[in-house]
Amino acid sequence: MSFINKLLDTARRNQSLLCVGLDPNPDRMPKMGILDFNRAIIDATHDLVCAYKPNLAFYEALGSQGLTILEQTLAHIPADIPTIGDAKRGDIGNTAQAYARALFSTLGFDAATVNPYLGFDSVEAFIGYQDRGVFVLCRTSNPSATDFQDLRCPDGSTLYETVAHKAREWNTYGNIGLVVGATYPEELRRIRSICPGMCLLIPGIGAQGGDLASAVRHGVDAQGEKAIINVSRQILYASKGGDFAEAARATAERIRSQINSCLKPKR
Amino acid sequence: MSFINKLLDTARRNQSLLCVGLDPNPDRMPKMGILDFNRAIIDATHDLVCAYKPNLAFYEALGSQGLTILEQTLAHIPADIPTIGDAKRGDIGNTAQAYARALFSTLGFDAATVNPYLGFDSVEAFIGYQDRGVFVLCRTSNPSATDFQDLRCPDGSTLYETVAHKAREWNTYGNIGLVVGATYPEELRRIRSICPGMCLLIPGIGAQGGDLASAVRHGVDAQGEKAIINVSRQILYASKGGDFAEAARATAERIRSQINSCLKPKR
Repeated sequence: MSFINKLLDTARRNQSLLCVGLDPNPDRMPKMGILDFNRAIIDATHDLVCAYKPNLAFYEALGSQGLTILEQTLAHIPADIPTIGDAKRGDIGNTAQAYARALFSTLGFDAATVNPYLGFDSVEAFIGYQDRGVFVLCRTSNPSATDFQDLRCPDGSTLYETVAHKAREWNTYGNIGLVVGATYPEELRRIRSICPGMCLLIPGIGAQGGDLASAVRHGVDAQGEKAIINVSRQILYASKGGDFAEAARATAERIRSQINSCLKPKR
Repeated sequence: MSFINKLLDTARRNQSLLCVGLDPNPDRMPKMGILDFNRAIIDATHDLVCAYKPNLAFYEALGSQGLTILEQTLAHIPADIPTIGDAKRGDIGNTAQAYARALFSTLGFDAATVNPYLGFDSVEAFIGYQDRGVFVLCRTSNPSATDFQDLRCPDGSTLYETVAHKAREWNTYGNIGLVVGATYPEELRRIRSICPGMCLLIPGIGAQGGDLASAVRHGVDAQGEKAIINVSRQILYASKGGDFAEAARATAERIRSQINSCLKPKR
């Protein structure tokens, strides 16, 4: 099954556009093993999400054992829930092939994030895995996203809009999506209008301060779908005590409801 | 010792601007373990190089054991030769901290490559390690580098020139360098003129077809230094037979001589 169908199935089954970012930070967790922590978060939230998104940085910071923990975490996620490898990779063609193999074959992610700075041949190896999803960074959620992404091109469009147009052009297999931060609702609206049918991965809610209602309203497609609202820290660290899993579940449940209440009635 | 001093020391000692890219591809190697292959390449070339640059993609493609091989490869590189982790990472501040920790603390690289698409806060965590080098992607060596890097900004400069200017502005600690492909000699010349004192990491010679003479002439600073000419495949796979290490050494020796013959006589 393609990534997009797996995503839509899970989102409908769980009535959820919420994605939980599995970004374990030992300083903010209860004192316990990271794998046990991840498993408890997954057990507590798997019926409330449309996807899980581990960011590889937090595993790489732990060295080779971190990658083992990531592999074991992925093995614990129910097979019908899509996984997004947030790696933001980008390299020349020959090397991009190795990264695509790392994320899609070795780790087995259903989708991955990629950085567009190197252009088409850095993305090509990823989209060649036609059953996987490829989320191209477009307008990121961080404060200095403006440094380059807002630069204006000669035709008057910004760099991030140019990336959105190019991603549409590259989307031969229909498996490209875009990453757009919830912290920039107006930019999100513009990107959704450039790519009305694409899946958008939307981080920036919660710890980063993005507004949930506008992220949902501007992010979803005409059917009220194809938006993935990612929340990491707000859910993972809802409590630092022994009740962290229950607290994570309660927070995930609340955010899922808030998202659904922003959708038009037909959903 | 800072990265730049370690680099200059090694380059002077070995009379070399050549960096060997340790990018093992099992399909192109003799039938043997990757760690043994890497160790043999290092043993055969360590007196001919100014640095080693493993690209993380080739290790990640092997899963968690790949990271162990990378750690063991780094342990085999003589301590006085600088190592550059070619990872091209770029993420929001909180996550960039985890990537910087992964590359500089966990793996212990002397320098790393980073992607500028997310702007300053994605680079900040890296340059905070003031004794390490941080190479910002500027004009990459691949054919589709033109997709975005050549876009013109309102002031008439291209995106890659804007990145070079920003990198200069960000360079408070003097540890920022730029990645510029040898496949674009004119762009290399322009970048060197924008950043006359910065260290440039120059891939694209060899398998990618960049011209060595213009890469050296346009890449070095006024003292004929601070250019790192990277070659990977042409050296690693100089022979697929049992003589691969001797062939790698002979090729590295030849390229080092070619580089030195392009330098002005005072070197």
